Amino acid sequence: MSQTDTSAVPSESAQHEAALFELLRIPSVSADSRHKPDVARAADWVEARLRGMGLAVERLATPGAPILFAQSPPVPGKPVALIYGHYDVQPPDPLDEWQSPPFEPTVRDGNVYARGATDDKGQMLTHVLGVESLLKAEDKLPIQVKFLIEGEEEVGSEHLEAAVGANRDKLACDVVVVSDSSQFAPGVPAITYGLRGIAYYELFVEGPKQDLHSGSFGGGVTNPVNTLAKLLAALVDSDGRIQVPGFYDNVEPLTDRERAEFARLPFDEERFKKQLNVDGVTGEKGFTTLERRWARPTCDVNGIWGGYQGEGAKTVLPARAGAKVSFRLVPNQDPEKITAGLRKLLEPLVPPGAKLTIKPHHGAPGVKFSLESPYMAAATAAIEAGFGAKPVFMREGGSIPIVGTFARELDADVLLLGWGLDDDNTHSPNEKFNLGDFHRGIKASAALWTHLANCG
Amino acid sequence: MSQTDTSAVPSESAQHEAALFELLRIPSVSADSRHKPDVARAADWVEARLRGMGLAVERLATPGAPILFAQSPPVPGKPVALIYGHYDVQPPDPLDEWQSPPFEPTVRDGNVYARGATDDKGQMLTHVLGVESLLKAEDKLPIQVKFLIEGEEEVGSEHLEAAVGANRDKLACDVVVVSDSSQFAPGVPAITYGLRGIAYYELFVEGPKQDLHSGSFGGGVTNPVNTLAKLLAALVDSDGRIQVPGFYDNVEPLTDRERAEFARLPFDEERFKKQLNVDGVTGEKGFTTLERRWARPTCDVNGIWGGYQGEGAKTVLPARAGAKVSFRLVPNQDPEKITAGLRKLLEPLVPPGAKLTIKPHHGAPGVKFSLESPYMAAATAAIEAGFGAKPVFMREGGSIPIVGTFARELDADVLLLGWGLDDDNTHSPNEKFNLGDFHRGIKASAALWTHLANCG
Repeated sequence: MSQTDTSAVPSESAQHEAALFELLRIPSVSADSRHKPDVARAADWVEARLRGMGLAVERLATPGAPILFAQSPPVPGKPVALIYGHYDVQPPDPLDEWQSPPFEPTVRDGNVYARGATDDKGQMLTHVLGVESLLKAEDKLPIQVKFLIEGEEEVGSEHLEAAVGANRDKLACDVVVVSDSSQFAPGVPAITYGLRGIAYYELFVEGPKQDLHSGSFGGGVTNPVNTLAKLLAALVDSDGRIQVPGFYDNVEPLTDRERAEFARLPFDEERFKKQLNVDGVTGEKGFTTLERRWARPTCDVNGIWGGYQGEGAKTVLPARAGAKVSFRLVPNQDPEKITAGLRKLLEPLVPPGAKLTIKPHHGAPGVKFSLESPYMAAATAAIEAGFGAKPVFMREGGSIPIVGTFARELDADVLLLGWGLDDDNTHSPNEKFNLGDFHRGIKASAALWTHLANCG
Repeated sequence: MSQTDTSAVPSESAQHEAALFELLRIPSVSADSRHKPDVARAADWVEARLRGMGLAVERLATPGAPILFAQSPPVPGKPVALIYGHYDVQPPDPLDEWQSPPFEPTVRDGNVYARGATDDKGQMLTHVLGVESLLKAEDKLPIQVKFLIEGEEEVGSEHLEAAVGANRDKLACDVVVVSDSSQFAPGVPAITYGLRGIAYYELFVEGPKQDLHSGSFGGGVTNPVNTLAKLLAALVDSDGRIQVPGFYDNVEPLTDRERAEFARLPFDEERFKKQLNVDGVTGEKGFTTLERRWARPTCDVNGIWGGYQGEGAKTVLPARAGAKVSFRLVPNQDPEKITAGLRKLLEPLVPPGAKLTIKPHHGAPGVKFSLESPYMAAATAAIEAGFGAKPVFMREGGSIPIVGTFARELDADVLLLGWGLDDDNTHSPNEKFNLGDFHRGIKASAALWTHLANCG
């Protein structure tokens, strides 16, 4: 059966790519309020596509960007799968580093280049189109499939969590399927069983009421930029250990099995450095690069600003400075506790004449899922059908905040099936998605619903 | 005699203000290449005014903004005075903090608000108009007066130094007069006998070849912004002592007399904090606020940038970051040595995976002049004539890089006669100049040439 369905996919591939490009042309940047209308257009596009395949579609009540919910008819005695994805994208800047415009999908070397190609429009569509092609091949699905597609993932999914809590019955399922991550390497598909969480903050340091002449006033008053640098430098010590009080209290250590499996993976550190054009890598002492990226908490300054950034030399003592700072969290770390610890660490370091404001942005704990579930086995078989290779099991350093919510609120297992690659430049200029993987992902998705039917 | 001349000034005051406003309307921002034509227009305006009063005017050869030179006929047996000023101004940003547009001079409470009002168009003009009014009252000047007016002071006067060296004979003088500083307080005119120097740098930290996803890569690679924060934090210790090796080696200590005189000045620290709206002040331990601002070296970050500065939360690991950093220097500190020391301090702190570039911008040593010279006595008398009060003797934290050059190249004393006030917001939004002081400065200038004639 899965043969019939999946063999139908290639002949539809041109039409599938056309659909992908249509969606990629919509600049649905959720972080930038100027793009609100585009976010709405992307929602309309996805809704129309789901409706077109005969699913019952509705919008869950939310004060934020539209949250789409769609479902196929129930199939008694079979598991229910909920597919989650998002139609919003990261801001495209710095624009001048894109080889082709971020919202004009362009194909080079078998890849489509556009903001959102991998994260998450392309991967989300593999399931929309996978279900669509299966429905075309047979009039009904072997299990009940539900879709939950949101438009605020890149800004912390702040309204989805409430929507999930308010719609537990509607969203009830046995397994959640999410494709918003990567394969381990080209030709090495992976199932990701763990994700890091996040705690994101904006720091503001205010000094004198306005910019001052650094000659006349320098040395006489506290400089907010010097102060901000001191605060940021205090976050991490020279061994890469984060100094927030209690930060490591609940960190689950890597098991020997995990460390051994990570070490077995074909990760080439020299290739990695070459790919990033760096002469070395640093991080928490005592851990390998994969361990630091996947299973250890971190602290990164995501942005900083203050004073004169223009051409030439302006001798100014800035009135204020700010930074965006985020911590990646591993399972059992609580973002609330991190916020309290951050205040406890930084507030005593603020000198007279400066005022620190810490604005928590969004937070989500890290998650991990069992490698032993029947759903994991079904996904393994589906990936073999779509990609022609057995998947490896890995963790991922990025966050999908809502995954923790699904596990908690719906008491469901979550399958993280990444079709992307780690050089897809998600959140960077020249984001791409391999079109071969796009089609293989659609094929694997179409196969998955059939394999899940055997888990009943 | 000085009675006759100076009494002529008030009747001309409306015309003098009209001249000031005309010049202030020209946005001659030397740091921003887009304003090059405006810088040229300001030069033309000053040249026309000098020519109009019958002086021989020429432009000294320079690859930079026009350097104007003008002179009156020699007066045998009398000292020669060289008046220095500049017609360029600081960038006006942040624009949204101006109460009236920076290049539309606006009078409020007896002050004219505009970029360059005090620094240095208004103060420079007091001498142009002082000499002009004296020439109107009597056909000739009691001493030979020379003008040297440049357009690159706010970007380090890089071409003036060469021009002075190449025109020693033409510029030969006994005393240089500069009005580009402040009175001690309203009604407390001052002669500034010392200035701090400067060493200005741009720091660039480069990491991965492009911005990365801070989730997938965070902890795995060196973050350029975290790195920059560490470098900046290492510049100054918790006692406000600058950590650049050898930084304090040649610093001339404050004399007991200086510390006593500074302490006697009517400086109200509470008023100072209130004026800046800060709850406290910090700086080098063991020195008063006036000592730190006038006579101790400092380190200020003037600007910083890196990563995402837009709305919302972008989870990016930035590819690069940068900062503008300047040190204020006191007499005997050598900017070249500071540059070497800065590299020695920072380069070993740069971790693998990051590259530091230090770009020296401009440097100038600090200066100090004798309180005992006959020129100092003439200036004291002229200020009494113009302001009706004896001046106090102070130092200033800002730099006029060229002052050191005059002392060295022309072997001349330099009179720093500040007509401004310390709340004039030079280099800040809402720069202003008190119009009463503008007219008193013109009157003092007109009197100065007569008093200097007695120094022969």
